[in-house]
Amino acid sequence: MELKSENGSTEKSSEIPPPTNPMVTPILTDLYQLTMAYAYWKAGKHNERAVFDLFYRKSPFHGEFTVFAGLEECIRFIANFKFTEEHIAFVREALPGTCEEGFLDYLRQLDCSEVEVYAIPEGSIVFPRVPLLRVEGPVGVAQLLETTLVNLVNFASLVATNAARHRIVAGNSKLLLEFGLRRAQGPDGGISASKYCYMGGFDATSNVAAGKLFGIPLKGTHSHAFVSSFMSPDEIVEKSLKSADGSTSCEDFVNLVQTWLNKIQRTKFLTGGFGDTNLSELAAFTSYALAFPDNFLALVDTYDVLRSGIPNFCAVALALRDLGYKAMGIRLDSGDLAYLSCEARKFFQVIEKEFGVPDFGKMSITASNDLNEETLDHLNKQGHQVDAFGIGTYLVTCYAQAALGCVFKLVEINNQPRMKLSEDVSKVSIPCKKQCYRLYGKEGYPLVDLMIGEIEPAPKVGERILCRHPFNESKRAYVVPQRVEELLKCYWRAKMREDMLPLKDIRDRCIRQLEKMRPDHMRRLNPTPYKVSVSAKLYDFIHFLWLNEAPVGELQ
Amino acid sequence: MELKSENGSTEKSSEIPPPTNPMVTPILTDLYQLTMAYAYWKAGKHNERAVFDLFYRKSPFHGEFTVFAGLEECIRFIANFKFTEEHIAFVREALPGTCEEGFLDYLRQLDCSEVEVYAIPEGSIVFPRVPLLRVEGPVGVAQLLETTLVNLVNFASLVATNAARHRIVAGNSKLLLEFGLRRAQGPDGGISASKYCYMGGFDATSNVAAGKLFGIPLKGTHSHAFVSSFMSPDEIVEKSLKSADGSTSCEDFVNLVQTWLNKIQRTKFLTGGFGDTNLSELAAFTSYALAFPDNFLALVDTYDVLRSGIPNFCAVALALRDLGYKAMGIRLDSGDLAYLSCEARKFFQVIEKEFGVPDFGKMSITASNDLNEETLDHLNKQGHQVDAFGIGTYLVTCYAQAALGCVFKLVEINNQPRMKLSEDVSKVSIPCKKQCYRLYGKEGYPLVDLMIGEIEPAPKVGERILCRHPFNESKRAYVVPQRVEELLKCYWRAKMREDMLPLKDIRDRCIRQLEKMRPDHMRRLNPTPYKVSVSAKLYDFIHFLWLNEAPVGELQ
Repeated sequence: MELKSENGSTEKSSEIPPPTNPMVTPILTDLYQLTMAYAYWKAGKHNERAVFDLFYRKSPFHGEFTVFAGLEECIRFIANFKFTEEHIAFVREALPGTCEEGFLDYLRQLDCSEVEVYAIPEGSIVFPRVPLLRVEGPVGVAQLLETTLVNLVNFASLVATNAARHRIVAGNSKLLLEFGLRRAQGPDGGISASKYCYMGGFDATSNVAAGKLFGIPLKGTHSHAFVSSFMSPDEIVEKSLKSADGSTSCEDFVNLVQTWLNKIQRTKFLTGGFGDTNLSELAAFTSYALAFPDNFLALVDTYDVLRSGIPNFCAVALALRDLGYKAMGIRLDSGDLAYLSCEARKFFQVIEKEFGVPDFGKMSITASNDLNEETLDHLNKQGHQVDAFGIGTYLVTCYAQAALGCVFKLVEINNQPRMKLSEDVSKVSIPCKKQCYRLYGKEGYPLVDLMIGEIEPAPKVGERILCRHPFNESKRAYVVPQRVEELLKCYWRAKMREDMLPLKDIRDRCIRQLEKMRPDHMRRLNPTPYKVSVSAKLYDFIHFLWLNEAPVGELQ
Repeated sequence: MELKSENGSTEKSSEIPPPTNPMVTPILTDLYQLTMAYAYWKAGKHNERAVFDLFYRKSPFHGEFTVFAGLEECIRFIANFKFTEEHIAFVREALPGTCEEGFLDYLRQLDCSEVEVYAIPEGSIVFPRVPLLRVEGPVGVAQLLETTLVNLVNFASLVATNAARHRIVAGNSKLLLEFGLRRAQGPDGGISASKYCYMGGFDATSNVAAGKLFGIPLKGTHSHAFVSSFMSPDEIVEKSLKSADGSTSCEDFVNLVQTWLNKIQRTKFLTGGFGDTNLSELAAFTSYALAFPDNFLALVDTYDVLRSGIPNFCAVALALRDLGYKAMGIRLDSGDLAYLSCEARKFFQVIEKEFGVPDFGKMSITASNDLNEETLDHLNKQGHQVDAFGIGTYLVTCYAQAALGCVFKLVEINNQPRMKLSEDVSKVSIPCKKQCYRLYGKEGYPLVDLMIGEIEPAPKVGERILCRHPFNESKRAYVVPQRVEELLKCYWRAKMREDMLPLKDIRDRCIRQLEKMRPDHMRRLNPTPYKVSVSAKLYDFIHFLWLNEAPVGELQ
């Protein structure tokens, strides 16, 4: 996935692989992009040079930050942007009325060789209104990119942000597993979620296709169906198990497990007390251990966690230990996870003490079952003994806020700055081709993002800079940056362009940047807004243009 | 897309095309399906005959119904289920520990020729706990289908239901357009949303790829960027326009538009009054009309709807009319849609009267901008003049509830009924291979869905039948059905299997079924729950099995 640009040579698009999902083509777009392309072409405007900004207006989940994701897929789409004859034939059919053949010829030869894309590196922490991508090129083709680019960034950034927020609540010491494929919004809702949750700080996924496509570590055990598919240990035919070092073999592992279960049942120090455990569960655990003696992790809540699942698990784990194997742990998928995890921990500790089994008390406990930021927070407050969280539905569908509102706005055409007005000031776009900077303070934290016009000089370290809110005239502040970071880097077409990094490196960038933010911007409840500003010059220009474009009413 | 089964002949899977999204393969699954398959295989259990039910537990959006969707994609997946060598190689890598080569050989030859799928027809109205699919086959392969089937049904049914709910609020006379691609959860979040919103009762989509894949009607106009890409009518070079019948030609359409604008500006009956309209907008509208004289629909809120957008639109529409063209209408994308649509309607009616233009007052008004069920409801209550709604974000991401909780539960293996217990009674599954019926009352409405054991006799018309709540012993009722509908039909593998219908027919079924429901089940607020029941015999069996499986505690 690492793509190096060769210094000085013109690159071919074939260097960059196509989008991960083969359904991402130039016709994965809104019809109006094609009608507009036709109208631009009819008006002879299609080659006018335009600049579009892709940005969002409000961070999701009542938060004050977003993790920018989806850039690599955008660049793959742009690099391979080409209508096939099949697409062209469909466009001819789809356009209302009859369209001229010349337009179809225009589409036929269209690619992104005249397009330039500057972007904030993927995995960066970003803020409202600052362009994530700046797309410059002939208006005909640049406009045609809108829907697809917005689609590729919107969900990617949303779910990466969601993952990062879960990581912040869970803390760095916990393992976070994404288990959402079945509940995701369609097949690549699942695949994208797995990719971008990993980017946002998760450790692994259950999604095999995502593991294959992106090299994300895979995790998983078994389900309730596996447990209830067994009736009793009698049905296990192949009962022998070799020891871990291969030196010996246990001829009747089923019996060994039963022996341990009897010992556990006689242990008076075990809290609660339990009668007979469920035999179909015992059979399922035994059978699973015979298949994966090295990686035995059992789902313990099919019948009853404390009275059946945990004793059954311990019996199998202790039998495995006799043969030199180390069981991995349990998964809880229902009930009071705080309470059950604490009880399970105590149980393991009693086993450790009673039977002199070092480290048995540290057995890993995974919890799943409709977890989200809030339930993680509650678990933390209640106290729990969970080592790993498996998170599905709420994570991958971004249940708390299912969409991010990225938009793609024309900010300049033919060197003329343009802006979209609106009755709602938050929807007014910031005109002009812009440069964007992040200014850092003395303590190393980012202080403010600053947008300036293309030809304004870059802000300098140690210089006193007036940063203005783009629309609110009373909000402004002087900043003396200790470090200045240019945010927009070239990702498409220039000879010197940024490398596409492996997913793992993008994930590392994300984790590093999250750690670098001032904590009050990142907290879950009532975070402090991060400041996004424009230069004094850009501020003045915005307001000049605004007055110019808005019609003046006549009161009667 | 219509697939007929040939009577009497064994069908080849190649008759059925692969899933729409090529990413849907046997490895689009959770890792634990593969570890379980390995454990089943190791235990020699993989060919035991199992029955799984796919169902959901609670209808979404605080409603009491769901539109079942996704079946065709499930059948395509099943019919083409086959591991490639590339998949096998990855499975070898992905399984924890080392797996035996024999297992990989087993996967190599695996397909769904031994699997049977019964399902409720796609586009049907369905209710909690009733199996949407019943999958029967060797446990090894049936288990491997779980994640993918659930993924394919969950979002499809959720978004089809969301669309149906929007249709109910909007009423049948309004045009409903799905505009959500850019905000959807990834590329095929968008494509699935377009397909299943159409199924749920929408009329068209903006998504070109969905139009091509599924034959859904396409709609779209232009965006704000198109409007702001123009500076003034002076830049329009090609100004001539042929009349609709080709008999004459207007050499300066730009001037004709200007003449009409002047006339409109002098019309004293137009409410409000306005000064100069925005010239870049006028240029954009004129240019768009030159490209699409037959299909002129303008987005009128880039600068100011009443002072600029509507007068500009009317000038262009009247100029087009001089040449025999009929403009289609306007789109409003911001502001107070109820108020603006009423003002626009008045404006059109004044034009009709002042200039003697028949039907100008009926000009179509499309509204968009973050619409959802609730805003549609509010618009209805306020009174509005909107003819068509363009709905995006809230519709396609199912913002009000981003996931449906479909599950896939083992209900029988080796002819032994199985059930999953849970501390939460709503999560307990109903055991046994079941038949499912919908019983209709005198007034033609469905009264209750009834699940019975496989060998119980089917309910008969006119017979008094005791229907019991599966878990609540006090909830039961006698029903004398006037009509009995068998819900589960064979969709895979039997010689006589149901045809897969074209999308349009499935949509018709959905619309018909929605109309057939008793209205109080369908209302938006506090709908009456529809009853889902089991036979007395199945009830008794469930509770016998429950007591049998649950461990008995010992209080100390």
